[in-house]
Amino acid sequence: MRIALDAMGGDRGPGMAIQGALAAVQEKSDLHVILLGPRPLLEEQIAGYSSGWHGLRDRITLYHAPEVITMDDLPVEAVRKKKEATVMVGFDLVKNGEADALVSAGNSGATMAAAIKKLGRLPGISRPGLGSFFPTVKKPVMLMDIGANVDCRPQHLYQFAVMASSCSHLLLNYDRPRVGLLSIGEETGKGNALVKETYDLLKRSPLNFVGNVEGRDVWKGDVDVIVCDGFVGNIALKVSEGLAEAAMQMLKREIMKTWRAKVGSLLIRGAFAGFKKQLDYAEYGGAPLLGIDGTGIICHGASNAIAIRNAIEVAANMVRNRVNDAIVHTLGEYTA
Amino acid sequence: MRIALDAMGGDRGPGMAIQGALAAVQEKSDLHVILLGPRPLLEEQIAGYSSGWHGLRDRITLYHAPEVITMDDLPVEAVRKKKEATVMVGFDLVKNGEADALVSAGNSGATMAAAIKKLGRLPGISRPGLGSFFPTVKKPVMLMDIGANVDCRPQHLYQFAVMASSCSHLLLNYDRPRVGLLSIGEETGKGNALVKETYDLLKRSPLNFVGNVEGRDVWKGDVDVIVCDGFVGNIALKVSEGLAEAAMQMLKREIMKTWRAKVGSLLIRGAFAGFKKQLDYAEYGGAPLLGIDGTGIICHGASNAIAIRNAIEVAANMVRNRVNDAIVHTLGEYTA
Repeated sequence: MRIALDAMGGDRGPGMAIQGALAAVQEKSDLHVILLGPRPLLEEQIAGYSSGWHGLRDRITLYHAPEVITMDDLPVEAVRKKKEATVMVGFDLVKNGEADALVSAGNSGATMAAAIKKLGRLPGISRPGLGSFFPTVKKPVMLMDIGANVDCRPQHLYQFAVMASSCSHLLLNYDRPRVGLLSIGEETGKGNALVKETYDLLKRSPLNFVGNVEGRDVWKGDVDVIVCDGFVGNIALKVSEGLAEAAMQMLKREIMKTWRAKVGSLLIRGAFAGFKKQLDYAEYGGAPLLGIDGTGIICHGASNAIAIRNAIEVAANMVRNRVNDAIVHTLGEYTA
Repeated sequence: MRIALDAMGGDRGPGMAIQGALAAVQEKSDLHVILLGPRPLLEEQIAGYSSGWHGLRDRITLYHAPEVITMDDLPVEAVRKKKEATVMVGFDLVKNGEADALVSAGNSGATMAAAIKKLGRLPGISRPGLGSFFPTVKKPVMLMDIGANVDCRPQHLYQFAVMASSCSHLLLNYDRPRVGLLSIGEETGKGNALVKETYDLLKRSPLNFVGNVEGRDVWKGDVDVIVCDGFVGNIALKVSEGLAEAAMQMLKREIMKTWRAKVGSLLIRGAFAGFKKQLDYAEYGGAPLLGIDGTGIICHGASNAIAIRNAIEVAANMVRNRVNDAIVHTLGEYTA
């Protein structure tokens, strides 16, 4: 299993990618990571982690990709102009069979554009998208799309449902994943024009469609897959991130008001750490790029080494479990 | 100042409305509350609160409205068929000048429909909407629309911006409120078709438009007003509610794992209460129904007495500060 890893993608520099790669190959003996970036920089960076290399060196390859797409680059333009960017070179490796999948914490729009350009879409898919695992009070739920497609038609949402169902069935072992349609009320007929049309499409499909779900259901875990357009999915994701951060700040401010609470906060520290781990996107291994003829994972720009390691594992699992074959098969069963 | 209060609206029964009304008139000596509902039921219910009535009885009037619109009623149908429903009778009182505003914790769609039917729109407003105050780590932000209008055009979002700006300027004393447009990236050009068109409209307007904001900015407090269509706003609101609940459950589960954390949680209890109060929608006094030719506040169905009391105060403040005059004036300054 060879995973190409964009060393230049994250906000926190190539060190995170290198540490994530080391952690991944240490954990899984059948794993090989191909680090993508300007070779001199990769060599310099990697020298700093020499102590972690015992026995792992032969399972990490450096691969020269001289250009870097930044977060400020416009996706379509970046893909046209930066032909030797890490993600472009990486998806070439996937296309040629030299890598099984690509992981990047870089510009998600550009990574998506690069994937479509280099690998193309799966048969029957009109819009590849990004799925994301949300933690809930029960089991994780897959939300799709979280930002790749901002203006959608019902067929696109149906395809997101097929892709996310296949993915959560194979990666999370969900049997016939329950699919919910994100709307502003549970009753049939609630929602905007897109949701109303999509409802009928999902209802007629062979998917395990359970109806509309509301924003609060994203965190309940009563469904396995939630579909929405990428604009709404992105808002849901970012609002959640923002609230989690704001809540921590508000709580800290309250705790600092009394000595009693300060002492309590020391005793409760372990529980807080466990709680934060449950909410931490890093634990969930990035967002699978679904609908491309190949495998790609996009990580949060702020990803740490654990997030990168987990994303590499998710990428490997997607390849092993042939998620793409399942998507094509399910799409073939029913024409929306 | 006479505020009509729908006693039949909330999920928690007329008792909450009565307690809220009592708390409101107790706090403000110039306030009069008109309780709406079937008279026999109101008389029976109010008997249970006789101990709180000293000196307040003459400032609470019971007003007979025999019909009740439930949460399951379809708004348009309910307004057509239930002509003597609490909110229908209440908005009649507002129209006739017998009440200055209406507060309801009932079916928000039906309350909106009743307001439009009885009072009509403000001159220049095509779509009345619901604004909501969100707590942030800094000052509250007003998000509009939170669910009244699911499919919008750019002009509607511009009008939401005008209404929410006027409202937050007069109620929260924000000087030239900073208006953000909810999107999936801060850069100009990010967003769906609706957002891109609205961006230009807001940029040309005399409002203090600061550009796109992301979902995480809802909780940051760096802008004063955030505009979006009602579908997206509702998702943002409900996802936040869902996460707040889920986070509490997750944290409790972690705390129950060790004795150390259990003891800590006792010491930290006061800080937790302060924190929950900051996040509590009840503290923010419901959602102003903006754009109607009159004043209405819609409360959360789960509102407690504090939420009702605060909503009554917000309604009174809206009337006192002539929010509607400001909206009409601002709209007149510029034609979008």
